[in-house]
Amino acid sequence: MTEMNSNVLKVASSSNPNSVAGAIAGVIREQGRVEVQAIGAGAVNQAVKAAAIVRGFLAPSGIDLIVIPAFQDVEIDGEGRTAIRLIMEPRR
Amino acid sequence: MTEMNSNVLKVASSSNPNSVAGAIAGVIREQGRVEVQAIGAGAVNQAVKAAAIVRGFLAPSGIDLIVIPAFQDVEIDGEGRTAIRLIMEPRR
Repeated sequence: MTEMNSNVLKVASSSNPNSVAGAIAGVIREQGRVEVQAIGAGAVNQAVKAAAIVRGFLAPSGIDLIVIPAFQDVEIDGEGRTAIRLIMEPRR
Repeated sequence: MTEMNSNVLKVASSSNPNSVAGAIAGVIREQGRVEVQAIGAGAVNQAVKAAAIVRGFLAPSGIDLIVIPAFQDVEIDGEGRTAIRLIMEPRR
């Protein structure tokens, strides 16, 4: 599922990449930038697929979306985990 | 393992992200651009980790590395598969 929380889209391994791509496109159009967070290989894979898909959604509007990956320490149920944060924004 | 083939770095789920990051940095410094290919969630995850790591390697040289994800049809042992291609280049 995809959940919107303080401007971070959280992606799970069960997320549908097309749905995530739609959500990313919406945030990009409204806010110009989005951060997508994924924990674990399956979730990271869905997030990257969504990024590839949303580039196609945004290209006709002249938006060349780029991705900046980073590690992010997060706490899940009191345990420290390392998430992948994919910052997406138009190429400037 | 990481294998260099016609300017495409192939990353597997068993690849070490630090080693891949080093290989990416080398190609970026020599050729200015690299394409990283991964098939499957585990491999995509390692490739994204490598991208996050190599940004840190290149930042001191003033290189702000960005990632452009795309789908790529490939043939593996005669079977069609969809790979993820991560194009990495300095932000222009």
